[in-house]
Amino acid sequence: MSTTATQDLDAIAAAAAAAAEPFAATNPRERAAAIVAVAAALEGAADELVAIAERETGLSEARLRGELTRSCVQLRLFADTVVDGGYLDVRIDEADPGFVLGPRPDVRRYLIPLGPVLNFAASNFPFAFSVAGGDSAAALAAGCPVIVKGHSGHPELSARTAQIVAAALADAGMPHGVFQLVTGQQEGVAMLKDPRVKAGSFTGSIPAGRMLADIAAERPAPIPFFGELGSVNPVFVTRAALEERGDAIATGLVTSVAGSAGQLCTKPGFVFVPAGHGLDPAIADAAAAVPEHRMLNQRIAAGFADRRAAILAAPGVRVVAAGSVRLDQDGHGWVTPSIVAVSLADLIAGRAELLDECFGPLSILVEYDEDADLAAIVPTLFEGNLTATVHAGDSEDAPALRALVRVLTGHAGRVLFGGWPTGVAVTPAMQHGGPWPATTNDSSTSVGTAAIGRFLRPVAYQGAAEHLLPAPLRSANPWNVPQRFAPAGESASWGSASR
Amino acid sequence: MSTTATQDLDAIAAAAAAAAEPFAATNPRERAAAIVAVAAALEGAADELVAIAERETGLSEARLRGELTRSCVQLRLFADTVVDGGYLDVRIDEADPGFVLGPRPDVRRYLIPLGPVLNFAASNFPFAFSVAGGDSAAALAAGCPVIVKGHSGHPELSARTAQIVAAALADAGMPHGVFQLVTGQQEGVAMLKDPRVKAGSFTGSIPAGRMLADIAAERPAPIPFFGELGSVNPVFVTRAALEERGDAIATGLVTSVAGSAGQLCTKPGFVFVPAGHGLDPAIADAAAAVPEHRMLNQRIAAGFADRRAAILAAPGVRVVAAGSVRLDQDGHGWVTPSIVAVSLADLIAGRAELLDECFGPLSILVEYDEDADLAAIVPTLFEGNLTATVHAGDSEDAPALRALVRVLTGHAGRVLFGGWPTGVAVTPAMQHGGPWPATTNDSSTSVGTAAIGRFLRPVAYQGAAEHLLPAPLRSANPWNVPQRFAPAGESASWGSASR
Repeated sequence: MSTTATQDLDAIAAAAAAAAEPFAATNPRERAAAIVAVAAALEGAADELVAIAERETGLSEARLRGELTRSCVQLRLFADTVVDGGYLDVRIDEADPGFVLGPRPDVRRYLIPLGPVLNFAASNFPFAFSVAGGDSAAALAAGCPVIVKGHSGHPELSARTAQIVAAALADAGMPHGVFQLVTGQQEGVAMLKDPRVKAGSFTGSIPAGRMLADIAAERPAPIPFFGELGSVNPVFVTRAALEERGDAIATGLVTSVAGSAGQLCTKPGFVFVPAGHGLDPAIADAAAAVPEHRMLNQRIAAGFADRRAAILAAPGVRVVAAGSVRLDQDGHGWVTPSIVAVSLADLIAGRAELLDECFGPLSILVEYDEDADLAAIVPTLFEGNLTATVHAGDSEDAPALRALVRVLTGHAGRVLFGGWPTGVAVTPAMQHGGPWPATTNDSSTSVGTAAIGRFLRPVAYQGAAEHLLPAPLRSANPWNVPQRFAPAGESASWGSASR
Repeated sequence: MSTTATQDLDAIAAAAAAAAEPFAATNPRERAAAIVAVAAALEGAADELVAIAERETGLSEARLRGELTRSCVQLRLFADTVVDGGYLDVRIDEADPGFVLGPRPDVRRYLIPLGPVLNFAASNFPFAFSVAGGDSAAALAAGCPVIVKGHSGHPELSARTAQIVAAALADAGMPHGVFQLVTGQQEGVAMLKDPRVKAGSFTGSIPAGRMLADIAAERPAPIPFFGELGSVNPVFVTRAALEERGDAIATGLVTSVAGSAGQLCTKPGFVFVPAGHGLDPAIADAAAAVPEHRMLNQRIAAGFADRRAAILAAPGVRVVAAGSVRLDQDGHGWVTPSIVAVSLADLIAGRAELLDECFGPLSILVEYDEDADLAAIVPTLFEGNLTATVHAGDSEDAPALRALVRVLTGHAGRVLFGGWPTGVAVTPAMQHGGPWPATTNDSSTSVGTAAIGRFLRPVAYQGAAEHLLPAPLRSANPWNVPQRFAPAGESASWGSASR
């Protein structure tokens, strides 16, 4: 295992492993209080953290303050989730001497933390998907020690955030080693291979996510790996929607594409609109009003410039709003949004050039004819996506629309009606995931309180005396968590739910 | 893709893929009725099926009839699970214009079927873990078309069972292609690589399970793979338990080891007993009373003979009940149980020879001294297991016992107190899984109704009109499934649960 002057990876893994049992044993109110203390500490350092983030990422102060608030709300929601205890999925089979397959023992099942989680931070959300972001919040809530592999795009912010988080957790009485930072790609890979690490999470590109997922799967003892990778987030506008609110769709699209310089995993990459839509002037006007925005780093800016040039040069592509991309003398990339249009036929013909994700403020209008069978065409164009969006008429309910919605459900983790996919709400019902390559594992979500489920595994106790049961499984229910019972003498499916 | 005269793999995958959408769209009562019809059809053919199974597997008629009953009860439990609808995990965020992070949309999330599931059948449970076994029942309940890769150990039974299941599903109105059988190792591998297959399940050996898990992970679009592999199921007997009920433990152990000729994934492979336990006579007597049992096939019998010989020859091993193994003129292997003893020190010294799973009726008593720190030693000996069992005194509650239970919880999917791990109840709270190498993926179970979760993924609808929502997410709740609400105006954690 590689070691640098400042990072002793073996010691970091050992500390995380040593913290696993005591941290898992913390009671929900203590753990929730510690998570709330992290939120308060981050809010207390907001001015300092936002200033570092602005310098390191080029994102606007308003966006960064909003993102920090979001991260803190997220931490508090996970604290609520811990106290609620429903996430433990407690199931209790009462012993049943008369069970149809012979006497049934008392069996009680709940979810326990996996152990140390390695979280690879993202570049594009220096708060919400980074050191103190959703993956860290979910893992801490689950009761797992966290090791964050910091992103090289905001090193000072990562280090300072990690200091604040670790100190707040220590002050709240959580065990040493419960929150640590490592930096460096090789170090991240070495840590992912460490047998003491029990799960990984990641937000980033398809090649990097695939490489890490493969490493997790190839370990002598494989571990779950939750990577959130690429998505082009197709949008479908029906004729009725266009007629009802074409201008609002045009400006909404530009706002969604331009926000954070399009460096969002949910940026709408393709917008299917009826041919002859007439939206060009409204889109061009809205795009022209968007000020230049700095991109996160030079590599991303260069990648965007290349992809944009290739798309603009592809056969059949018409420029609706050219946008711009330039490098300043410091090497920073500055952009305004580009919106282009192509016929559905030309998109199909030019798929090799056009279909890959373009990370940055560019979106492609795909003009379809009235008689196009979108439900049949979509699966031939797109793999899994985080989102798919439908703009339909207010009371539209055609069979073709229903067929399209069914197909989109098979290809996305979230299907939106109206609105835009950017701006993911942090709530119990949110789903931020989707079939490959949107994620490496679409059994869960990386946004919303359901994300806690990624870092848990079930264990059952059979025939245990009350005093040897963990608190959530005891009949006395000292933590007051939801417990579902399968009572003796009934069908063995779910009986009464009880809290 | 390989094709044989009798199997057109491409056509099988195509039929499963075509069935996916209509099968997913079946309403819960229809799907449950179809699953119950499968159970009834199997029961109707019990005499025929059990006779084939007896001939092909050497298992006893009583065991096979019990196993068929178990499989049918299992199907009915999954039918109940489908109708109950709690497995859909419906979450509804009501729109909230005053949400702390800005207006929150109406978001509704539930779990949908993954699509075609490939189930690799096991040899040792020709009904309960084979063609119509738990994996098939769980996948059908989830709404996934099933392709079973039949086990070569009972080909005629597999073919006949598949005929009966497919016919019952067709008669119940389920779509063509919803249940199919393939045979052959190469064919199974080819099917696992087919992009139309969306998940795999498996019960069998560590090498075979690992090979298949790797294939699933290496696909261009990786899929979840739920393999249940090896387990040695350690048992720990305390001094107090020994004094309270030593003879019952001796006879219980022999019954558990001898059942089905020890060819069970939950057979107790190691039994830690205090040195000077004095159980030898009781164990020897109980073992001597066990009649010869035929093993499943020649390969398993030969493997058992080799492992048994190696264990008996290992340094420090004492024979408590020698047992026997012989091949008859038809090539069938016949066995009686072997119980040996070794000191904890000799087990540690001979770990390379002794620790691997021995599939068949053999168990090793591990004799430990009063002062041994089992909680510290166990993790150095064992990886993940399906089960771990503690026999403690009736009111025993020593710190060492609690420490041992904590450690076992970290190494097993099910921790038993008293009793024996063989005979896994099929219930809502059952957990049949565990850390690697017990399974390739310990986020779920392969026995019990929670197994349905393996074949589902979440999807959210945002801002959808009632008429475009799937039935379980509609406010009118036409399927009457449990829906959990996060109401507007409250903390965004869980609000009221409602059915």
